[in-house]
Amino acid sequence: MSGNSIGTILRLTTFGESHGIAIGGILDGVPPKMPISKKEIQKELNKRRPGSSKYTSERKEKDLIEIFSGVFHGYTTGTSIGLIIKNQDHKPQDYFDLKNVYRPNHADFSYFKKYGIRDYRGGGRASARETAIRVAAGAIAKKYLRKKYNLKITGFLKQIGNIKCANIDLKQVAKNKLFCPDYNCLPLIINFIKNLKKTGDSIGAKIGIFIENVPIGLGEPVFDKLDAELAHSLMSINAVKGVEIGDGFKCVTQYGSTSYDEITSQGFKKNHSGGILGGISTGQNILISLAIKPTSSINIPVKTINTYGDHTTICTRGRHDPCIGIRAIPVAEAMVALTLMDHDLRNKAQCK
Amino acid sequence: MSGNSIGTILRLTTFGESHGIAIGGILDGVPPKMPISKKEIQKELNKRRPGSSKYTSERKEKDLIEIFSGVFHGYTTGTSIGLIIKNQDHKPQDYFDLKNVYRPNHADFSYFKKYGIRDYRGGGRASARETAIRVAAGAIAKKYLRKKYNLKITGFLKQIGNIKCANIDLKQVAKNKLFCPDYNCLPLIINFIKNLKKTGDSIGAKIGIFIENVPIGLGEPVFDKLDAELAHSLMSINAVKGVEIGDGFKCVTQYGSTSYDEITSQGFKKNHSGGILGGISTGQNILISLAIKPTSSINIPVKTINTYGDHTTICTRGRHDPCIGIRAIPVAEAMVALTLMDHDLRNKAQCK
Amino acid sequence: MSGNSIGTILRLTTFGESHGIAIGGILDGVPPKMPISKKEIQKELNKRRPGSSKYTSERKEKDLIEIFSGVFHGYTTGTSIGLIIKNQDHKPQDYFDLKNVYRPNHADFSYFKKYGIRDYRGGGRASARETAIRVAAGAIAKKYLRKKYNLKITGFLKQIGNIKCANIDLKQVAKNKLFCPDYNCLPLIINFIKNLKKTGDSIGAKIGIFIENVPIGLGEPVFDKLDAELAHSLMSINAVKGVEIGDGFKCVTQYGSTSYDEITSQGFKKNHSGGILGGISTGQNILISLAIKPTSSINIPVKTINTYGDHTTICTRGRHDPCIGIRAIPVAEAMVALTLMDHDLRNKAQCK
Amino acid sequence: MSGNSIGTILRLTTFGESHGIAIGGILDGVPPKMPISKKEIQKELNKRRPGSSKYTSERKEKDLIEIFSGVFHGYTTGTSIGLIIKNQDHKPQDYFDLKNVYRPNHADFSYFKKYGIRDYRGGGRASARETAIRVAAGAIAKKYLRKKYNLKITGFLKQIGNIKCANIDLKQVAKNKLFCPDYNCLPLIINFIKNLKKTGDSIGAKIGIFIENVPIGLGEPVFDKLDAELAHSLMSINAVKGVEIGDGFKCVTQYGSTSYDEITSQGFKKNHSGGILGGISTGQNILISLAIKPTSSINIPVKTINTYGDHTTICTRGRHDPCIGIRAIPVAEAMVALTLMDHDLRNKAQCK
Repeated sequence: MSGNSIGTILRLTTFGESHGIAIGGILDGVPPKMPISKKEIQKELNKRRPGSSKYTSERKEKDLIEIFSGVFHGYTTGTSIGLIIKNQDHKPQDYFDLKNVYRPNHADFSYFKKYGIRDYRGGGRASARETAIRVAAGAIAKKYLRKKYNLKITGFLKQIGNIKCANIDLKQVAKNKLFCPDYNCLPLIINFIKNLKKTGDSIGAKIGIFIENVPIGLGEPVFDKLDAELAHSLMSINAVKGVEIGDGFKCVTQYGSTSYDEITSQGFKKNHSGGILGGISTGQNILISLAIKPTSSINIPVKTINTYGDHTTICTRGRHDPCIGIRAIPVAEAMVALTLMDHDLRNKAQCK
Repeated sequence: MSGNSIGTILRLTTFGESHGIAIGGILDGVPPKMPISKKEIQKELNKRRPGSSKYTSERKEKDLIEIFSGVFHGYTTGTSIGLIIKNQDHKPQDYFDLKNVYRPNHADFSYFKKYGIRDYRGGGRASARETAIRVAAGAIAKKYLRKKYNLKITGFLKQIGNIKCANIDLKQVAKNKLFCPDYNCLPLIINFIKNLKKTGDSIGAKIGIFIENVPIGLGEPVFDKLDAELAHSLMSINAVKGVEIGDGFKCVTQYGSTSYDEITSQGFKKNHSGGILGGISTGQNILISLAIKPTSSINIPVKTINTYGDHTTICTRGRHDPCIGIRAIPVAEAMVALTLMDHDLRNKAQCK
Repeated sequence: MSGNSIGTILRLTTFGESHGIAIGGILDGVPPKMPISKKEIQKELNKRRPGSSKYTSERKEKDLIEIFSGVFHGYTTGTSIGLIIKNQDHKPQDYFDLKNVYRPNHADFSYFKKYGIRDYRGGGRASARETAIRVAAGAIAKKYLRKKYNLKITGFLKQIGNIKCANIDLKQVAKNKLFCPDYNCLPLIINFIKNLKKTGDSIGAKIGIFIENVPIGLGEPVFDKLDAELAHSLMSINAVKGVEIGDGFKCVTQYGSTSYDEITSQGFKKNHSGGILGGISTGQNILISLAIKPTSSINIPVKTINTYGDHTTICTRGRHDPCIGIRAIPVAEAMVALTLMDHDLRNKAQCK
Repeated sequence: MSGNSIGTILRLTTFGESHGIAIGGILDGVPPKMPISKKEIQKELNKRRPGSSKYTSERKEKDLIEIFSGVFHGYTTGTSIGLIIKNQDHKPQDYFDLKNVYRPNHADFSYFKKYGIRDYRGGGRASARETAIRVAAGAIAKKYLRKKYNLKITGFLKQIGNIKCANIDLKQVAKNKLFCPDYNCLPLIINFIKNLKKTGDSIGAKIGIFIENVPIGLGEPVFDKLDAELAHSLMSINAVKGVEIGDGFKCVTQYGSTSYDEITSQGFKKNHSGGILGGISTGQNILISLAIKPTSSINIPVKTINTYGDHTTICTRGRHDPCIGIRAIPVAEAMVALTLMDHDLRNKAQCK
């Protein structure tokens, strides 16, 4: 395996490059007789789609999902689901000048050194374009979890540069295209991004993920703990540089006597642990934070070398996201959904 | 699979409970003709062993490794390596009063709810005791990486409570039993832990991992990125609540124009990315940080419920670590070694 | 996982139904910088393609391969290869009368009982149509093995009904569309099939597979023995009911003293074992036989029940193969190629 | 992975050499709260144990099972089960003269060529001794299947050399140590083996496996068909050279019009298919046959070469089985049980 699959019972395998013919995936292990429509999947894809707002990439991709197999008369059949998205606004020629340059903080250097060959068109396989298929597959997992448990996964912008969302109101998240939970912060962030676009620069972000109505018992002991597998699936998203469960790095200064989650006959009193103990969900909300690095493509010249070892500068004139942390949010939700559904099936196999 | 295996080509599968007869593991996929001795493995185990210093648990375990198979006349044969450590200081009766209580922040509650049965003796399978086998297997992986690349993995204490190690000198780490890299900080930390033991309380910690002489090209695209798999293997260690690669959460406030790693003909100028780009190692040092929560067992009464739902308090009189972050360091090194060796073999399979 | 993947390092995952939009697959783990063209893949597909001779199904499918990813400027990039074949001659309406009937010896009954839903159009996922993608992926594996070892896999018709090929001349195989190795037998077989088509009946067959220039050392001890994995991949082909390695069932009456393969300084004197000892290839030719059951679809009424439990008869008027054993030959070759290439990469990972 | 694991949800991983300290295994994925005793496992082990009759190897091994983990107060806990059997009658010195000789039809040659090192003591890892752990793990799977479905797996001797069991009466099987189902054949077989022992020769055999009360729906489409996975697990047993499902190689001469399994409102009328259609169990009995080659170790000099390439002869004076097909029967039953239980859990995960 060279790494294009994830999951144990529910397993997603993907293919496709940024400027190839299409990207696609196979989702295997979905239970039969689940109603699935293209519309439901498209709705999730539209959240991630570039060109959907002024604050993200202006590449025009409709990201139209096609279901090639595994769904019959609107219902899953239990066989593998083939998902395809054709690339529309692929302009390989835009990238010809990248052919011999290693863009800093991109995968150009490491891919070329590993494989000795590189699809230089927009990052090829290393492009975040592949995450569209994660969102498509995640839409199916989300529906499964919602129907079975009323489980809800909400990703949101917690911080962008130095602007922190102070008042987290998850109801706000769906009301704006930045997934911002803080009504008062929103204009500040919009203004900040506008100015950033003018300068051509990019910025990092912190994403929060809030998961409600989680069943007790998801996760496996030792190596496949739920938090370990969530860390895996989330860290596999482009630009993610850190993952926290529950209190995360706040734990460093905490004492055992004050930071524990008291159990009462009415349930847990606090949630320092973020809803997972011993790698297994407790039934509390699961709380996750992600660190997202600034978009590597910026419209400012940066120093690097070409493939011959000569010094040069590169400036991405293209259509990049000033803050990739925004469009990463639906991708993070999708990865969480896939991981939770996989663990729900694993739990069902052994324990129910 | 219920989660007791990790790795793709190099694969560790483990068994064993805290107060059972023995813990053990099978390490499959090690190349043949590699010299391996019990002594080398024992050396690593001694770093993690309880009872080795005043600053950690006083449970007396010699953690003597036995190699049951896969090594012939001092050399690996390429077949599966059976590793066994018999439990010596197991006192199941010490834990009889835990039979019907869910210790807060322990796995008692989630295990019982998942499985409907629970080995309550010292946490059973959820105990950090299982990590001894990780260290034993990791010793073999460490040796492989050292021989092949002179690769070196150094885990160290970065922060404990509010005491931060300011002057990181990795040469200091092996000179003290706290894995402290800061000569000046060491007495402060020792004093802090002494006082903590008197109160019976516990504290969180931040661990750093510094990996030198990493070959270029480890890691696979998309889902099995090197950072994703490191996050998985590290987050699977008991008490880890956060993982950062490179700048980690510092990225949140960084700009693309100032935080990029310039490539020159002499190599990279900086290392914000922590040695991994696009999920593949760049040949730079790999930099990781971990958040460790305070030990859940403390010698102070904490509120909880029993299995009948009645309110009660529990106070661990036993022999716990005031800061589990210390003994977690050799475990973290082992997990890094296993993940890197697995990826070296995966890279060799496809790319070399 | 619900079973749509095969292989460990080289891994094929497929999707698609007989009368859906397309069938497809993702081949992951192919080394980079290998030249691959659609033409090479198409050549293999044409061997399996229906409608290519009077002796097989008359369904008209061009089986045109499209490569959606993983190949750049004619070379593999080391990333996942997306393979798609659009269905052309799909006539779902032809199958409407099968909606409520369980065709005997088909998967209709077991699929419906397992999943509670069934894509009844031509067998849906259970149709042998999915094997086209196996052949496409196998073409890549065949090329890899041929370039590296000059390894050659020849599948051939050993027996059909009571007609046994007595003089096996592998050079004949490519010269006729029945993969018949016996020049004298060929007219008998052609005549037999012509008569069979008139009656609407079908017949079983025995396939031989002869593999030359196999490197020593492929296969893993214990559970992933080369013969075990070959048996798995071959038995996964529709209609295969038996697998033999080397002497196979002839062993039953053999004595140890007379049936052993003497080793000399010039190599092995005989090959009862079929080129595999202890699950590992010896460097001799690998010899395999397969039993293929008669095509289940026949143009003769057969008794069965419908989904309501009522007795009925069904007669497949369609375009079936009188002997599915013929078109199964290129599929068997493909599965052997995929399994051998996977084991070559596994061997390289650990032992070279 | 180097091949020492089998199964997807229920997964067995093993270690151990013929003349090492112990053999062992980890069985992961067993549901919690299942009662398991050493006695039950021992009972199955005693069927395979050498030295239990005059007709098999006289190596004295009590094969005493120890359960190191995963069972608490007599019940499985859902965590990994550690199984250990210490080697007792290991006489490594007996094998010193094998150090430099490749025994024909043994794995000596292929192991040494693959790994460049070889544990020559009694075949090391390639010895059928490892199958004891399969039987131990299989005992747990058998119990699971019996309790849930009253499923029963009966392996029996179908043929040994030219002696065919004509009257198959499965009730006879447990009454004799040869697993012979034919009361009249038994004295012939006993006599045949006695004479064989005198000559020091060995003989092949055909094993039948009859599986009753199989639930409908086990097996996954395409690559993990139930028959494909059974073929894998059975062909992984030492000395197995052929696997047939249902009519197996009899299919070669069958016509579709006469060999189909008519479905009626009372069930299937016949069982040519052996209980599996489209890779999924139909609820009928599953019928399997295995070809077993003659034991490779014989007490008659055979020609071979040593590791220096010189011609020599070798004669196994030791304690071999005249017909390994007898002791292979409980191993085959165990592998069937493990595969069926794994598929039952897989089916439960996705479909129930």
